Amino acid sequence: MLSPVTEAFIADLHTRLPASSFRELSPAYLEEPRGRYHGQGGALLVPSTTDEVAEIVRACATARIGIVPFGGGTGLVGGQIMAKGPAPVILSLERMRAVRALYERENVLVVEAGAVLAEVQAAAEAAGRLFPLSLASEGSARIGGLLSTNAGGVNVLRYGNARDLCLGIEAVLPDGSILNGLKRLRKDNTGYDLRHLLVGAEGTLGIITAAALKLVPRPAQEAAALLAVRDPAAALELLALAQARLGEGVSAFELMHRMGLDFLAQTMPGIRQPWPDPPDWSVLIDLGLGAGQDPGAALEELFVEADAAGLVGDGLIARSQAQRAEFWALRESIPLANRRIGAISSHDISVPLSAIPEMIARAGPALAEIGEFRINCFGHVGDGNLHYNVFPPPGETRADHENKRAAVKRCVHDLVNDLGGSVSAEHGVGRLKVEDIECYCDPAKLAAMRAIKSALDPIGIMNPGVILRAPA
Amino acid sequence: MLSPVTEAFIADLHTRLPASSFRELSPAYLEEPRGRYHGQGGALLVPSTTDEVAEIVRACATARIGIVPFGGGTGLVGGQIMAKGPAPVILSLERMRAVRALYERENVLVVEAGAVLAEVQAAAEAAGRLFPLSLASEGSARIGGLLSTNAGGVNVLRYGNARDLCLGIEAVLPDGSILNGLKRLRKDNTGYDLRHLLVGAEGTLGIITAAALKLVPRPAQEAAALLAVRDPAAALELLALAQARLGEGVSAFELMHRMGLDFLAQTMPGIRQPWPDPPDWSVLIDLGLGAGQDPGAALEELFVEADAAGLVGDGLIARSQAQRAEFWALRESIPLANRRIGAISSHDISVPLSAIPEMIARAGPALAEIGEFRINCFGHVGDGNLHYNVFPPPGETRADHENKRAAVKRCVHDLVNDLGGSVSAEHGVGRLKVEDIECYCDPAKLAAMRAIKSALDPIGIMNPGVILRAPA
Repeated sequence: MLSPVTEAFIADLHTRLPASSFRELSPAYLEEPRGRYHGQGGALLVPSTTDEVAEIVRACATARIGIVPFGGGTGLVGGQIMAKGPAPVILSLERMRAVRALYERENVLVVEAGAVLAEVQAAAEAAGRLFPLSLASEGSARIGGLLSTNAGGVNVLRYGNARDLCLGIEAVLPDGSILNGLKRLRKDNTGYDLRHLLVGAEGTLGIITAAALKLVPRPAQEAAALLAVRDPAAALELLALAQARLGEGVSAFELMHRMGLDFLAQTMPGIRQPWPDPPDWSVLIDLGLGAGQDPGAALEELFVEADAAGLVGDGLIARSQAQRAEFWALRESIPLANRRIGAISSHDISVPLSAIPEMIARAGPALAEIGEFRINCFGHVGDGNLHYNVFPPPGETRADHENKRAAVKRCVHDLVNDLGGSVSAEHGVGRLKVEDIECYCDPAKLAAMRAIKSALDPIGIMNPGVILRAPA
Repeated sequence: MLSPVTEAFIADLHTRLPASSFRELSPAYLEEPRGRYHGQGGALLVPSTTDEVAEIVRACATARIGIVPFGGGTGLVGGQIMAKGPAPVILSLERMRAVRALYERENVLVVEAGAVLAEVQAAAEAAGRLFPLSLASEGSARIGGLLSTNAGGVNVLRYGNARDLCLGIEAVLPDGSILNGLKRLRKDNTGYDLRHLLVGAEGTLGIITAAALKLVPRPAQEAAALLAVRDPAAALELLALAQARLGEGVSAFELMHRMGLDFLAQTMPGIRQPWPDPPDWSVLIDLGLGAGQDPGAALEELFVEADAAGLVGDGLIARSQAQRAEFWALRESIPLANRRIGAISSHDISVPLSAIPEMIARAGPALAEIGEFRINCFGHVGDGNLHYNVFPPPGETRADHENKRAAVKRCVHDLVNDLGGSVSAEHGVGRLKVEDIECYCDPAKLAAMRAIKSALDPIGIMNPGVILRAPA
């Protein structure tokens, strides 16, 4: 059983930490982007060093006080928001945002957990390298949170998830000990891979305080195209064709449904729409090739071959980097348009690649039995990862359909499970999907997760109620 | 405290398993490639299904009997050999070698743990795909063992370690429960990543029984070159140059010292040596490029640029796939030549890329203070992974220097540790390096590993004494 933060606890902490580590708790730490949760906290702590984080964790362990680690606050599953239970410490990494070291020759950047993704991308670019993690919230999301949730984004197809871009971590474990794992090694087989255990643990097994990140060479030439595809199956065939021709040169491959473009037109009319008559399905394909190769020409050849195979209709190849950026702005604005429309239920799901057409074909009719909805299905189709979001019909709000939300979610998740998929592809479990995990997760996995949580965090102070239900 | 296998235990198992699951224990299961360990076992079991594996594990858990999982027997750190302690069950996966399914469109192959790597490579090739894990023992090593040790090999630079090529696993946990994790997903953030925990756990947390493996498109064109380099620093500069020009097109980048070629000439005179006058240091570089690109021409251009920068001396570009295979046979035969010469101490180490020259520069003089040795340093320099092997002078045997072995190992490992490296880059810990881990491993990591082991395998039946010392 955990205890709430008390004045005595804070007074005691004041004797051990500099005054700068204490800040008044403001509403920004108690909200999340979709407005589903409203948090509470007994104190906001903003340590500036790993030792200070360790000091806080030790104090919380002794006092049996819960800790909610806080990164950029962009998480979509309530992992950063504790709505109930004894008031926890909210521990924000925002002051630990230093680039500790750049190893240019090694393609390694060591940064603190509070560094914002866009800053890390910029540091890599300044060194002539690429840090390929890229997602809509990159201007606010912080590295610690991105690793804790094993964030995905648009370049996973080529470069992998956040975990694949992390060579080593430093973390404070639930007993306050410091895991010194900031190795810059490509190969290290010295026992259990705690990095991979903490990455994706959403702060429930420790607090990541720094990471050694993998950089990659910047592709010499980049180009993008928007191609109208016949249907999702054609999108997959187009992807296979592109990969057969261009291998790892395909950096991103995003599927969009016309609904997303409609939502954009409705909520953000300032964004220039590329299609005079938007196709039902389109893909945004991004290429990054080596010196001496011409990605624009490669896209044209791909289009010609795909057209001959009946996969694509119209196509737009970006004529400049500005136009390429425009294509991407379109794609990256869809989540915000969705938020303005207001989804009844959003699903971050993945299925085996070949099951994508079946998923899309079956979900629509199944949902129609529950009610009349608009569906915006888009996402990282090359990873089998769809954002399958369900909206009210025009003129109605999500509040009007709140009573159907559970049934909608169940319908989509049952289908995903049936197809061997995952009910959380890249957003994580947080507090939002704890019940889904209990419902769909392999029982042996669930039991092993509980055993690991109990072993490493026997009191249960680390982000209580995330991934696994907090003990009653 | 564990118990030895008894006749009563075997008799009881006979009532639950088919007769085909029992085999006489032959010496092949009690030996390892370097002849350092001689094993013992109370029984050899060869189950043919995951359920049979689970049955055996449950029986062993009840009787508190240790289990040594056995793959191809090619491990180099004694993970498959239990030399002391109560006689264990040796559980070989050799009968579970089926390809369960091929998902061509998804680039996924689902195989059982006993499948030999060469068979898996062949299955991928038959589907027009590549399974890029490749190492000298690929004709014998089995997938279960390769994943349990997170094997590396020659293509890690481009495609990652074994763990990076695994999308999902099925495993039997120490309580006999079956972890059904054979997902074929590129993104799945539903809790702790048990796949990454079991991969690299060397059979101490469960027995991997099947895996969903990631295939990749076969490069359309491949080519290789052997280039004489000025020194290890020049090799690293050459790698940077190659990657800047060709990105992921660089599939492998292997460093060799002349000593390896000398050992080959001495022990395997049938192998054709490419150099009339072997250089001190050379690299084998392998390119795999997309359609329409010419990797031979790319290697020539690279050579010209590297020559202008003073990095390379002579160079040989393979004129045919047969010659490319010859270059690779040369590289892949070095471990066997080493074995025939007989190392005093072999070290599978990694250091941060930029520390490689310092490592090599410092290790030689440091070892010379211990005695007169020959050193064969070679390996996957693109991964920072060197096989730094120490041999007796000509005319002497490793037995003559047995008394120096501990000092040699300590000298190399201290230096590696000093440079922020790893004392086991790709071979694992096994039973050989348990003390090294105790000496060099971060204390917080060691404590967390022990907690996880106790939580998942409280009796300690799974591969006792591997990675972590078995309780006395």
